[in-house]
Amino acid sequence: MKELRIGLLGFGVVGRGVADLLLTQGLLLRQRAGIDLRLVRIATRTPGRDRGLDLGEVEVTGDLQRVVAADDIDVVIELIGGLDPAKSLVLEALRQGKHVVTANKALIATQGAELVPYAASVGRELLFEAAVAGAIPVIKVLREGLVANRIDQIYGILNGTCNYILTEMREKGVSFAEVLRDAQAKGFAEADPSFDVDGIDAAHKLAILAAIGFGSLPRFEQIHVEGIRHVSDVDITWASEMGYRIKLLGIAKQDAGGVELRVQPTLVPVTSMVASVEGVFNAVFIRGDSAGTTMYYGRGAGERPTASAVVADLVDIARNLRVGSGQRVSGFSTLPEYLSTSPVRQMDAWQGAYYLRLAVADRPGVLADVTAVLARQQISIDAIHQKGRSDVAAVPLIMVTHATTERQVRVALAQMETLDAVRETPRFIRIEPGFV
Amino acid sequence: MKELRIGLLGFGVVGRGVADLLLTQGLLLRQRAGIDLRLVRIATRTPGRDRGLDLGEVEVTGDLQRVVAADDIDVVIELIGGLDPAKSLVLEALRQGKHVVTANKALIATQGAELVPYAASVGRELLFEAAVAGAIPVIKVLREGLVANRIDQIYGILNGTCNYILTEMREKGVSFAEVLRDAQAKGFAEADPSFDVDGIDAAHKLAILAAIGFGSLPRFEQIHVEGIRHVSDVDITWASEMGYRIKLLGIAKQDAGGVELRVQPTLVPVTSMVASVEGVFNAVFIRGDSAGTTMYYGRGAGERPTASAVVADLVDIARNLRVGSGQRVSGFSTLPEYLSTSPVRQMDAWQGAYYLRLAVADRPGVLADVTAVLARQQISIDAIHQKGRSDVAAVPLIMVTHATTERQVRVALAQMETLDAVRETPRFIRIEPGFV
Repeated sequence: MKELRIGLLGFGVVGRGVADLLLTQGLLLRQRAGIDLRLVRIATRTPGRDRGLDLGEVEVTGDLQRVVAADDIDVVIELIGGLDPAKSLVLEALRQGKHVVTANKALIATQGAELVPYAASVGRELLFEAAVAGAIPVIKVLREGLVANRIDQIYGILNGTCNYILTEMREKGVSFAEVLRDAQAKGFAEADPSFDVDGIDAAHKLAILAAIGFGSLPRFEQIHVEGIRHVSDVDITWASEMGYRIKLLGIAKQDAGGVELRVQPTLVPVTSMVASVEGVFNAVFIRGDSAGTTMYYGRGAGERPTASAVVADLVDIARNLRVGSGQRVSGFSTLPEYLSTSPVRQMDAWQGAYYLRLAVADRPGVLADVTAVLARQQISIDAIHQKGRSDVAAVPLIMVTHATTERQVRVALAQMETLDAVRETPRFIRIEPGFV
Repeated sequence: MKELRIGLLGFGVVGRGVADLLLTQGLLLRQRAGIDLRLVRIATRTPGRDRGLDLGEVEVTGDLQRVVAADDIDVVIELIGGLDPAKSLVLEALRQGKHVVTANKALIATQGAELVPYAASVGRELLFEAAVAGAIPVIKVLREGLVANRIDQIYGILNGTCNYILTEMREKGVSFAEVLRDAQAKGFAEADPSFDVDGIDAAHKLAILAAIGFGSLPRFEQIHVEGIRHVSDVDITWASEMGYRIKLLGIAKQDAGGVELRVQPTLVPVTSMVASVEGVFNAVFIRGDSAGTTMYYGRGAGERPTASAVVADLVDIARNLRVGSGQRVSGFSTLPEYLSTSPVRQMDAWQGAYYLRLAVADRPGVLADVTAVLARQQISIDAIHQKGRSDVAAVPLIMVTHATTERQVRVALAQMETLDAVRETPRFIRIEPGFV
């Protein structure tokens, strides 16, 4: 075998980046992989466009099935996204003996428990480095670089859009809605931003990292997911004054009792490294029993950073083919027969400190009523801030609790909401003081 | 093949960590590698000691050759360090058909140009993840994760001892000599600290990273190496006041004109991520044409962090053996026949801003004399600081230059040293404003 013949499904931003890289970086890739990586076919909804590339002899078609079925293709790159028809195309490509590289985080996060063992059973690669954290090769790091470690903690900033919004809110002192509009205008956020701002995209990535790190396949629905829509400029300001930053984190922890999986806005100390990750950047922190905590930082999205990850997967396959190797690394690192399904903990039992924000009428007795609710739930207060203003209907009342359980906090907030002086739904943000 | 049979040369700190990991993490490693990793033999100068481990049936010998020659060994781990007899043992193990894993940075940095192609020629692995940055799998990242990128810049904190010393000097306001004594007492620095504090250890690691990143093999002697012995508490204090930190960095850059390789104390902006890496931690920053800059952070040394890297290499080999694969990734990533020898730039032509420190007599005319020297070399001054004190023989005179060449700076400093009012050898530290 002197070359790896490639078929590309999807010719959007990332597809263009992959094609560009394959067409221009050929010499370098051959010197490292030992064989040629040759783009043979592209399937796209708009087959008439070359997207500014010199495609040469590459056949461009509107027919996805035609590329999957072509007998002059060794590997199919799936970049169309979504579950349907992506899943059936991936299965069909594997069934026909092709390797598959995908950037589709939703597909792997929700269907990986079926797709990864299927690929192993037919002896083909299903690689997805580009599905998590863009240019950062964190999947290879987890599967191979840290393979000697029992991993007990993975957390990080997995969605650049949310991190950009939170960074802008803090730096410019503006509201979530304003920054979102601005980000949409600049193309950093989608017209329908819910996948990003509601935490679903980060949860997809977290599910994949947890599966590899823990050798355990959670059902995606078991992940506790909160987005950043309810983070207000008041929260950002108070967090700064108390020495914190607010970050949307994906957090996965494992111990003997089970697995904890959540995506949530989090207060982290301003002096921590995770707090220093700003703008569209991603960072993943992994703790292993031998390595300790290591950290991986870079661009989590974009045409060329994502293409970097897709083509790294192609080179992995090319290097295998050159030496006649079969699948050497299992998709989730742990071999399919050893994958477990650890129980996922309910958030009710989570323990820690909480930041609470209420909007209350500025009048006598309010503080007494609110603190009485906390006392009944045996929640003790670490700090409390309120500034009176006579000219507005409600003022922010900010409290930080000592360690308590999520159940107690939720009961207390539900009771507070019924108080006459409380004017909006009370909000909370969990505090993680121990993150690097 | 149902198991990978391992022989260990060297049973010091890292050797103990590797043995411990292999003896206690067996189930997890089998679930990920697909075959057993079995420690069969250990060679050590003190074969009577078990170092607190339950070695079971592992044969412990004082004879290094016996392990290299044993026919029940598939892979030899070289952890004895130094060049002799490490090099001949590694060559002999490869010649006898064994794979080799080593943590020996001096060996790979200075002899890699011979050893890596030799391993490829006999079809055996020579892996050395543990030689650079301990627990951080930065060699795998460079060889595989970022394989699609043309790399033009690699820099970072590659020596934890130096970073610990510089961090302590700043935080406690004490001198280099004091912190070094303290570090030696705590076991963070060797009795003979010159490999660390003179930058040689960092240069070994930089040479390895550059070879993989650039596909180019510099002669080790061509690397410009400065250590931290001349960094004074005065420098640290003034750097802080000007918004900088002082870090010992390894810096490798490549462009069409050649390669730049240097280890040096460097002024970096306090707001940069590299400045925030403190204490014994390492961090490596890599810039690729598609990925942009990505960063890798963690513990660079220690028993278990280094063992994590050694065992990851063993799993790499085990995964290859399980599927009957030969060497799929070349040691320096680029296949030996494509490795080049780019010219290494002389520092004389380096351009940038400089921090200068003089010790001068506090009397009229001194500033005029010093600035006249700079003017003659056409070096312009960005900032200057001097505080008069009548009770001492010499006071620090601190200057920051605009961009100039190293040649001009060296000529100017040599001329300053001849001035009657200049009381010590003038020192400089290069400034890198553009690092992440």
